[in-house]
Amino acid sequence: MTENPLFGDHQIGRLLSDEARYRDMVQIEAALASVQADLGIIPEESARQIAKFAKSFRVEGAILAERTGLDGVPVPALLAEFRKQMTEAGLGDHAEYVHRGPTSQDIMDTAFVLCLQRTLAVMDERLKELIARLARAAHEHRKTIIAARTRNRIATPTTLGCRIAGWASPLIRHRQRLSNLRPRLFVVSLAGASGNLSAFEGHGLATEAALAKRLGLGAAGAPWHSARDNLAELASLMALISGSLGKMAQDLLLSAQIDEGISAGSGGGSSTMPHKTNPTLQEAVVALARINAGDLGHVMDAMIHAQEREGSAWFRESLVLERMFVTAGAGLRHGIRLSGTIKVDENRNTRVFTDNRGLMMAEAASLVLADRFGLASARDIVKDACRVAVAEGRPLKEALVARVTDAESIDWDRIFDPAGWIGESEALIDRLLESLEG
Amino acid sequence: MTENPLFGDHQIGRLLSDEARYRDMVQIEAALASVQADLGIIPEESARQIAKFAKSFRVEGAILAERTGLDGVPVPALLAEFRKQMTEAGLGDHAEYVHRGPTSQDIMDTAFVLCLQRTLAVMDERLKELIARLARAAHEHRKTIIAARTRNRIATPTTLGCRIAGWASPLIRHRQRLSNLRPRLFVVSLAGASGNLSAFEGHGLATEAALAKRLGLGAAGAPWHSARDNLAELASLMALISGSLGKMAQDLLLSAQIDEGISAGSGGGSSTMPHKTNPTLQEAVVALARINAGDLGHVMDAMIHAQEREGSAWFRESLVLERMFVTAGAGLRHGIRLSGTIKVDENRNTRVFTDNRGLMMAEAASLVLADRFGLASARDIVKDACRVAVAEGRPLKEALVARVTDAESIDWDRIFDPAGWIGESEALIDRLLESLEG
Amino acid sequence: MTENPLFGDHQIGRLLSDEARYRDMVQIEAALASVQADLGIIPEESARQIAKFAKSFRVEGAILAERTGLDGVPVPALLAEFRKQMTEAGLGDHAEYVHRGPTSQDIMDTAFVLCLQRTLAVMDERLKELIARLARAAHEHRKTIIAARTRNRIATPTTLGCRIAGWASPLIRHRQRLSNLRPRLFVVSLAGASGNLSAFEGHGLATEAALAKRLGLGAAGAPWHSARDNLAELASLMALISGSLGKMAQDLLLSAQIDEGISAGSGGGSSTMPHKTNPTLQEAVVALARINAGDLGHVMDAMIHAQEREGSAWFRESLVLERMFVTAGAGLRHGIRLSGTIKVDENRNTRVFTDNRGLMMAEAASLVLADRFGLASARDIVKDACRVAVAEGRPLKEALVARVTDAESIDWDRIFDPAGWIGESEALIDRLLESLEG
Amino acid sequence: MTENPLFGDHQIGRLLSDEARYRDMVQIEAALASVQADLGIIPEESARQIAKFAKSFRVEGAILAERTGLDGVPVPALLAEFRKQMTEAGLGDHAEYVHRGPTSQDIMDTAFVLCLQRTLAVMDERLKELIARLARAAHEHRKTIIAARTRNRIATPTTLGCRIAGWASPLIRHRQRLSNLRPRLFVVSLAGASGNLSAFEGHGLATEAALAKRLGLGAAGAPWHSARDNLAELASLMALISGSLGKMAQDLLLSAQIDEGISAGSGGGSSTMPHKTNPTLQEAVVALARINAGDLGHVMDAMIHAQEREGSAWFRESLVLERMFVTAGAGLRHGIRLSGTIKVDENRNTRVFTDNRGLMMAEAASLVLADRFGLASARDIVKDACRVAVAEGRPLKEALVARVTDAESIDWDRIFDPAGWIGESEALIDRLLESLEG
Repeated sequence: MTENPLFGDHQIGRLLSDEARYRDMVQIEAALASVQADLGIIPEESARQIAKFAKSFRVEGAILAERTGLDGVPVPALLAEFRKQMTEAGLGDHAEYVHRGPTSQDIMDTAFVLCLQRTLAVMDERLKELIARLARAAHEHRKTIIAARTRNRIATPTTLGCRIAGWASPLIRHRQRLSNLRPRLFVVSLAGASGNLSAFEGHGLATEAALAKRLGLGAAGAPWHSARDNLAELASLMALISGSLGKMAQDLLLSAQIDEGISAGSGGGSSTMPHKTNPTLQEAVVALARINAGDLGHVMDAMIHAQEREGSAWFRESLVLERMFVTAGAGLRHGIRLSGTIKVDENRNTRVFTDNRGLMMAEAASLVLADRFGLASARDIVKDACRVAVAEGRPLKEALVARVTDAESIDWDRIFDPAGWIGESEALIDRLLESLEG
Repeated sequence: MTENPLFGDHQIGRLLSDEARYRDMVQIEAALASVQADLGIIPEESARQIAKFAKSFRVEGAILAERTGLDGVPVPALLAEFRKQMTEAGLGDHAEYVHRGPTSQDIMDTAFVLCLQRTLAVMDERLKELIARLARAAHEHRKTIIAARTRNRIATPTTLGCRIAGWASPLIRHRQRLSNLRPRLFVVSLAGASGNLSAFEGHGLATEAALAKRLGLGAAGAPWHSARDNLAELASLMALISGSLGKMAQDLLLSAQIDEGISAGSGGGSSTMPHKTNPTLQEAVVALARINAGDLGHVMDAMIHAQEREGSAWFRESLVLERMFVTAGAGLRHGIRLSGTIKVDENRNTRVFTDNRGLMMAEAASLVLADRFGLASARDIVKDACRVAVAEGRPLKEALVARVTDAESIDWDRIFDPAGWIGESEALIDRLLESLEG
Repeated sequence: MTENPLFGDHQIGRLLSDEARYRDMVQIEAALASVQADLGIIPEESARQIAKFAKSFRVEGAILAERTGLDGVPVPALLAEFRKQMTEAGLGDHAEYVHRGPTSQDIMDTAFVLCLQRTLAVMDERLKELIARLARAAHEHRKTIIAARTRNRIATPTTLGCRIAGWASPLIRHRQRLSNLRPRLFVVSLAGASGNLSAFEGHGLATEAALAKRLGLGAAGAPWHSARDNLAELASLMALISGSLGKMAQDLLLSAQIDEGISAGSGGGSSTMPHKTNPTLQEAVVALARINAGDLGHVMDAMIHAQEREGSAWFRESLVLERMFVTAGAGLRHGIRLSGTIKVDENRNTRVFTDNRGLMMAEAASLVLADRFGLASARDIVKDACRVAVAEGRPLKEALVARVTDAESIDWDRIFDPAGWIGESEALIDRLLESLEG
Repeated sequence: MTENPLFGDHQIGRLLSDEARYRDMVQIEAALASVQADLGIIPEESARQIAKFAKSFRVEGAILAERTGLDGVPVPALLAEFRKQMTEAGLGDHAEYVHRGPTSQDIMDTAFVLCLQRTLAVMDERLKELIARLARAAHEHRKTIIAARTRNRIATPTTLGCRIAGWASPLIRHRQRLSNLRPRLFVVSLAGASGNLSAFEGHGLATEAALAKRLGLGAAGAPWHSARDNLAELASLMALISGSLGKMAQDLLLSAQIDEGISAGSGGGSSTMPHKTNPTLQEAVVALARINAGDLGHVMDAMIHAQEREGSAWFRESLVLERMFVTAGAGLRHGIRLSGTIKVDENRNTRVFTDNRGLMMAEAASLVLADRFGLASARDIVKDACRVAVAEGRPLKEALVARVTDAESIDWDRIFDPAGWIGESEALIDRLLESLEG
């Protein structure tokens, strides 16, 4: 199932690929050299040559693989290759000024942050698109009455629009969360071997500040080699996003299961049953959500990152973070597709109501009868009528009429018209629409 | 190991106990009645009697247990008991106006939010106290030179103060995170059986707004019966807090392991080895951190909360959230104790340096020799000297002197004085101290 | 939700309680003394007095709490109390021969194994009872035709008996697994402070063998202080059991959701909707299954148990194992109740078939028509007919008749009689029943 | 870090690749056709042609990708391609007899089992090799005295051989577990669309039995489309294997951390610190172990597999299982490398003992002094002496001599010779060696 396109995300994958990271790493080294030249620490000409060479530098990941396996991280291999190529180009004297002061993890973490800037921009765009589509769908289905379900049972009427609006509300908060964490996350890492900038010979914090500026990032305030909370917070946001998508997809799966006439996407077929279409996207989104939920634990646990820097925790964090982005990204992609293709089959939806024989109006009946009998007695009457209606397979209305004196004076049609009992569904949809205009 | 006080937290446990929640539930019902009286929906006198009765109402959890097991949730049992007691007190007519419109989950979620307000206030106080203690300890140990360790190996010198400041930095961000999430989290839940406020007969959103105000909470904007992101975000913060504590405790455990003279807490003894003191608190904090990291997955996964409300996901969320608060709370308690008892044994710490024979000064030596040989050659010389020093068990200085021409012109004492190579450790500590003054 | 009886298990809880363990610990110390007396290492009279005193010894957990919090484990506190009480009884001279050689973990691990013997006997009984009930239910419903569902869609007909037999099959394997692991798990731990039995002065392995025999356990072959695979394997079995129960409960939840007339248990009511009964037990069993699935990760991760013994990993393992047994136990209890109360409402079940309009017979139709047209063409015909039947809300039979020449020569009634297409459902049920007789 | 060879396993990856599975799927279809021909269900010639064509059939995964994304599973696309190629080869009439009766999942599950047979054979070989290397290393280091460490503190002397033997013991049990689960796991899946073999027209169980025989597998006894316990048990074994490897690697990491002279593997260098070698393999093995521990939860949770077959649970199971095999496989590969390169630096190891000043002999001293003072008093004396020795940085022996009357009559050299206090370390190693001969 490895190469199944359902579970990957080309765009996100590319943005976080080894190649993308190598490119960023080299640019960070170039920017660092420029900063150090500005501060008078290395020769201006060397910084210039490094920056120029960095622009055209290319490397095949395969060349770095063996040494990366030995070192654990690609930076030493990448730097060796960079210096080698510079030397071959007759720039060996300048090559020596590459990577003065930082540790591998500085370069890798900063490159990761740069990759994340792009990745999160894509994620945010997808979130925005998904919210917009859901808002449209909620509006479109503001009058589509469906049976609300609670604890796996039919509860009372509601609207499909109201349910869809409910899918959108956490996504809006996820965008807020993204805004909240950006300033914490989008910072440079530059702290040197042991996190105290000792190899920058007194210019460490100044170098960090200047490098941050040059890269369009913030300064970190404190080394974060072994304080991984910002990445863990981001991983948590990926799981939150996947979780909200999973809830939406699970609702759609259950609609398929119940066959209540609410569908989305265009599933594939069966190898043996001609009548079936499978809700493939929905299944995938739920699977992806559960995967990200569980995977988050890895990143959280990897916060127990020993001393000044720890390889094992860092490896785990890195491996899992990457797959979490792809998982969240694939989920968003599918979610956008699902949200744009929500369809209602009126016939099947109507049948849910016929089939229910008015039981979902029990609460409504209690409320109306409460005016005459008080709520407690009204509930007892309705409960008894429900019991009989279920046992005998009769409409609740019949059972109630038989139980209430002076029954003809009650407006039973009003009670048993689901459209009259959708509460403030429309106001909730309007709130969503208004929140998006702001 | 169940009743082991290491793993519990009486204060947090009490704040989230069944009893605390029942109290809040009853007060919420009283507040709701008052709001509904204000809106002219129920009689003023009934609201008054309900509120009055709610003040003195007490219930034993045991009385509710059986029915709670049947219903899954305690609200029906609690309401039945409340109404029974009111009726016994001759207030049966008023009892009928209790719980008009909401669903059990509204009451439980809102009560949980009220409990969380108190719980998070305690957590925040503990975070503050912990940060303050760490800042003090960082300041106190700003000149204590220790061996920084990266990837399980001695790296270069640093200060204990710098390491401790690193423990504090994520905690400051956790307080920011708590601030970020409060407005999202501290909101009322009032949406009725199916999340569209249908049983409030048109006054739902108005009732929600007024109830929120009366309870000192925000209005939710949208029903959150099945949009559980705020709680999942909070669970994530619990794991983040535990994780940062785990990192600190892990560092202290490793110090015990290495026997490098850094200790904290006062561990217990061995049943058979008279010489041992065990770093019990550190062990517990790491265990608690890993537990919260894994437990978070449950809450994230429970975001896949079906349709308008789902029992199974809600049960899981609720069971795990509660234990996550206790786990984070116990960790904070131990963390405070550890942070206030950090001690350094100078003898043992010194021995780390003696024992290392100057190898941790290799980077420093490279930097100094670079002035004469260029960095690349300097590194080669130092690397070779390190190899020999390790193989022959000799000081690095000796090996270097033998390798460098005109060795006497180099200030070897400066190179091999760790105190000269702690980088900007003190500036980093000052940053922490300044950030707390603000 | 803490004290909710749905999530606890009194019997399992008691079997693994602190009190139960203390009792076992004391008995193990007594047995050890007896063995050491037999081997001539300690005085016979002391062993006799220790054994006698151990029989009547009682201790309140509260007395041990404080010191347990300090040491991390209760053994030092328990031994201190035991010796104190012996001394107070004038047996101080003998008290000195208690706990000669073992480490705390030996005593705790062995006591845990003894507790597990009883706990697993209860679990196995519950498994057996559950399998028996499911076999009865499968037999009872061997002719009850239901709609099989695959990938959330109606597939083809099957029988409820066949589905129920499917729930039983993994449970039978779980009992096999339990048999497989018993000899690995039910072994004594006796290896002393560092796992090499050094404090037994040369009699270690002999003492271990004799102690094992006396306690009715096996000898371990190798110390297992830090080789925790047997416990992790057992944790895995708990998750496997919970998972199989979760699958059964999930099926029943979906039946409630679809309202297809298959029910079990007797759920509680709603605080506001008179018509609802909630499938509480099913919800709880699914929640418990997901909790055990996630919790297993903790125990697996705690296998990374450092060096000769590690507190942190051990604490985590111990905390989580205990809750996993309770969780599996509660699930089994609920599963037994559910399996004994499976009911079918013929009316609702029939409606599933009416409602489906013959679509679930599409595979059957293909097979029959294949005799005339070949399978590929038959499938094309049926697929096309399905498309039309769905689009126009017509029975599949009608759509097929219109598409097939010489339609009257086909026995459509046979094709569209679900009872004719339940495959080898009964043979599968018979296999289950036979396997239980063996 | 994606392509880092540390985290992949080419051999395992290939054995579980899409290509390998497609090959098996096609062979299973061929075998099924042969069985069906034997049973007289399909023409012999067709079965022959299908089998012949299957042998040479090749397909590019890329061709199947789009439709696989739509269907969720590759079988429909693969069959379409197979039939298309047969038809292009003029064998269209026979192509129709491919895939008569099974559902996609039958083919995929059976193919997976065939892939697992090969994969587990490789795993078992690696386990065997690893155990053999550890046994050799244990034997080689049977006299190498090291400091045992418990709860992060030096405990008493032991041997490196004894520690290494401890690493091997769970691996032997893992091989037993593999033997236990093989008969459960290595079975065919053939149950048709809804798990009751309905499309096999009465020959289902006979077909299953014959197919199993032909493929060298067992018959399943009961359909396992939605009873996933065997795969979950296997996933658990992968986590168990990884966990035992993680424990070994963690011990080696701590040895690196402590710098106690025990090393293995050949780590990579630092980008900035010339003196460092990083224990890369050890870090990777620990990371891989923790990843498999957490990932197991996914597979366990996916046991909650709805009704007759569920896409979402199956997707999750499949995605995670695959990565768990690769993770366990990479860990084994690294473990073999580590176990074959364990080295001891006598100088550094000796220093641990010097540095400890005899404290680790405290238990030994208690035991010897017990002969004179009784164990309780002896322990008190030793405890007091330890306190003083630690506080004053003096050897324990000195502190003891000062505390004991008639001190010269005691054989202090015997007490303070670690080689005399390694208990039954050698016997434990011998047990391991003997168990391998059997």
